[in-house]
Amino acid sequence: MTERNLTMLTDFYEFTMANGYFEKGIGNRRAYFDMFFRRVPDGGGYAIMAGVEQLIEYFNNLHFSEEDIAYLRSRKCFSESFLNYLRDFEFECDVWAVPEGTPVFPGEPLVTVAGPMIQAQFVETMILLTINHQTLIATKANRITRAAEGRTVLEFGSRRAQGYDGAILGARAAYIGGCQGTACVLSDRDYKIPAGGTMAHSWVQMFDSEYEAFKAYADIYPDNCVFLVDTYNVLKSGVPNAIRVAKELEAEKGIRARGIRLDSGDIAYLSIEARKMLDAAGFEDMQIMASNSLDEYLVRDLLVQGARVDSFGIGERLITSKSEPVFGGVYKLAAVEDENGEIIPKIKVSENVEKITTPHFKQVYRLFDNKTGKALGDVLTVHDEQIDASLPYVLFHPVYTWKQRIVTDYTVRPLRVQLFKHGKCVYNSPDVEDIRKYCIREVDTLWDQIKRFENPQTYFVDLSKKLWSCKNELLEACRI
Amino acid sequence: MTERNLTMLTDFYEFTMANGYFEKGIGNRRAYFDMFFRRVPDGGGYAIMAGVEQLIEYFNNLHFSEEDIAYLRSRKCFSESFLNYLRDFEFECDVWAVPEGTPVFPGEPLVTVAGPMIQAQFVETMILLTINHQTLIATKANRITRAAEGRTVLEFGSRRAQGYDGAILGARAAYIGGCQGTACVLSDRDYKIPAGGTMAHSWVQMFDSEYEAFKAYADIYPDNCVFLVDTYNVLKSGVPNAIRVAKELEAEKGIRARGIRLDSGDIAYLSIEARKMLDAAGFEDMQIMASNSLDEYLVRDLLVQGARVDSFGIGERLITSKSEPVFGGVYKLAAVEDENGEIIPKIKVSENVEKITTPHFKQVYRLFDNKTGKALGDVLTVHDEQIDASLPYVLFHPVYTWKQRIVTDYTVRPLRVQLFKHGKCVYNSPDVEDIRKYCIREVDTLWDQIKRFENPQTYFVDLSKKLWSCKNELLEACRI
Repeated sequence: MTERNLTMLTDFYEFTMANGYFEKGIGNRRAYFDMFFRRVPDGGGYAIMAGVEQLIEYFNNLHFSEEDIAYLRSRKCFSESFLNYLRDFEFECDVWAVPEGTPVFPGEPLVTVAGPMIQAQFVETMILLTINHQTLIATKANRITRAAEGRTVLEFGSRRAQGYDGAILGARAAYIGGCQGTACVLSDRDYKIPAGGTMAHSWVQMFDSEYEAFKAYADIYPDNCVFLVDTYNVLKSGVPNAIRVAKELEAEKGIRARGIRLDSGDIAYLSIEARKMLDAAGFEDMQIMASNSLDEYLVRDLLVQGARVDSFGIGERLITSKSEPVFGGVYKLAAVEDENGEIIPKIKVSENVEKITTPHFKQVYRLFDNKTGKALGDVLTVHDEQIDASLPYVLFHPVYTWKQRIVTDYTVRPLRVQLFKHGKCVYNSPDVEDIRKYCIREVDTLWDQIKRFENPQTYFVDLSKKLWSCKNELLEACRI
Repeated sequence: MTERNLTMLTDFYEFTMANGYFEKGIGNRRAYFDMFFRRVPDGGGYAIMAGVEQLIEYFNNLHFSEEDIAYLRSRKCFSESFLNYLRDFEFECDVWAVPEGTPVFPGEPLVTVAGPMIQAQFVETMILLTINHQTLIATKANRITRAAEGRTVLEFGSRRAQGYDGAILGARAAYIGGCQGTACVLSDRDYKIPAGGTMAHSWVQMFDSEYEAFKAYADIYPDNCVFLVDTYNVLKSGVPNAIRVAKELEAEKGIRARGIRLDSGDIAYLSIEARKMLDAAGFEDMQIMASNSLDEYLVRDLLVQGARVDSFGIGERLITSKSEPVFGGVYKLAAVEDENGEIIPKIKVSENVEKITTPHFKQVYRLFDNKTGKALGDVLTVHDEQIDASLPYVLFHPVYTWKQRIVTDYTVRPLRVQLFKHGKCVYNSPDVEDIRKYCIREVDTLWDQIKRFENPQTYFVDLSKKLWSCKNELLEACRI
């Protein structure tokens, strides 16, 4: 895999601020930053965390080359002592993150970075870019696979992705979120995302007839025959030719054709009619794949109409999350340490209530009901708080504080893992295959009400009493 | 700049088809493919071509490493002779493309590839991915800069981009389309897109007061003072502190502060009030920048409301083209050569009339009115046709053929350049700075009716009589 140094993939103001902290002698003050998001795309009930492996690569590669230093010097606004600092840069931060594949919710810190102000600030752009992108696509993939109700969903969107990484890492994120594979070969070679595909319309056009095109394909790939049947006329030509070649394949080699693909037209009608024709010809096992600008809404709608589709190839609407192509993660200062090493929580107020941050260096816990195995809610606490599962726990709403719920017979799990300890990586990313399985298990812990597309229930993300009090005190102090 | 070999960034079916053509002995048959699009995003009147330089890099780098061969062998569906062909792969195609920065229209071939079937097919995914992405962003940037009516527009979206190239090459495309700069440092280092930026809210929060934060910034960057004024309260605190520090900067160093930035709240109201305060304090030259989830519609709306904004920082809605995040370019077979080297035009029919392709190996001409300098229309011809500008030319509508227009006193220009000749690059990409200037000049050749956001006039993209007849004959022949 090609290693790229993405250290310079950052907003220019990260450098002006870094140099500024350096010059003012406060660059080494320890600061705490949280990455979190405020709402789930498409009005969904949860998002699927993704991108942590690439974030770790970024931190591990963080360094400034002589070329970078020369570029920065040419900008004539950074001091030589700062450039020397960059030349000898060593990453010293602690980093925590929610593991990939975990369902996550608005308001909870997905990534926390603690370390020298100058460093903890600098990594903002890449943390947001990496997690925002992959979480967006994993979340969309999870919606689409849910709509497909157990049918296969494949990611087919490379050609419409927003840039090369949009395709490559988008395929990875889609797999984490639930897709069974991709069309993207590079994602298979480098990230072990199973890639597949058979033929385009141009294959069919290159032969003198559709039959000859299918026949040629079956000669070469007898084990992987999925015929694209909509180049001329699906029901009059495509399906009959597919059946004819499937029969010959069976007669000549004893191999069953895998199926057909519909890439245009009325998928509901055509799939139902094609199914009848395949069944009547004795090919009940031949599958029907559909792939025409689909998303979770169209997939669900097709199934409501009784479409006989066994697998879906999803392109542009998945790889760009077309209906909502932005995951709005932000990265905010949560605390700084004073000279004595005491943590001073920081809050960012706003006239928009939902833009007020939750201060302090925090921990995140997820509580599971022991009877059902279902997730009860997440609790944000001050970093050193523990939740003792042998005692009842009071979940209460951070705004409507009279809304309380006492939970008993539960298990508690810290939601995040530590990735870096004083700049050294202390976490091994799981295989993407394991992440995908973990995602399926974790989504299973959510109640159906959280999972529906329209008006899902809001999952509890509450604050501990201690954290709630801290936030309120800071809010009171801000009142002018 | 890090070189990446993106040869394997392709759909798996490109390989199954390539191996298939190879095995059937038709891999070297010469084929002609066109890349074109069917509609302009956001209902616009034109798109801005971008991505050609990256496409050239891709073609120049096209080769298969031993690692790639090993991966393909592991898939157990490709012949050893095919893998040997890939090992010795040499790109032999001819490639033509519309230069970057050119306004382009639905239905015209933006890229044409002619060469051995096996190769001309294989490059489909990367041509589409590259041109679709950058053309999407350049087109959006052009809309936003048009809305800003001469004010500065900067691209600020890295953190919300869809992957790393989405940020890096998105900044490049945005610059081509009309932005004056970016926040993305890597795009500046590698692509000479001017990057800039000053401070985030966290800078302001890190000091004991807003005044001290601004003062510290002015100490270090006296020549580049743009104060972010919305951390606490824009009019009660942010602007007064900015004015105080600006006065001190002037008194102490004789330097004028550059301006202030608004990143939240009611930009129309706040900018008008802030303008009054700055003017009253004698800082008529301090500029006001706005940057809060803006796009062309909000920019236009702000200006209609009389907002006093001098420059716009545009993030997620530009870097993802949020309102329409997909550019739907397609890549279709247009012709093949027979054994005698005769070009056989190919058509792809569809029940959707707009999905019917225009067959044949084509040329594209743009006609300009000599009196006004304005573009009159584009004409697609068979490849060997010339348009003699000394004679009147009849433009006619390809569907409503009675709609004709005779043009005289015009200049004709082939719209495309040749990039590769038998696999060798014969084109030097211009500097991105020159592309940007060229784009401004070329957009100036479009009538205002084409440029408006709502219901723009449809620009003429016509066929020559010869090409129109060819298309009609093929359509007649398809009729079942």
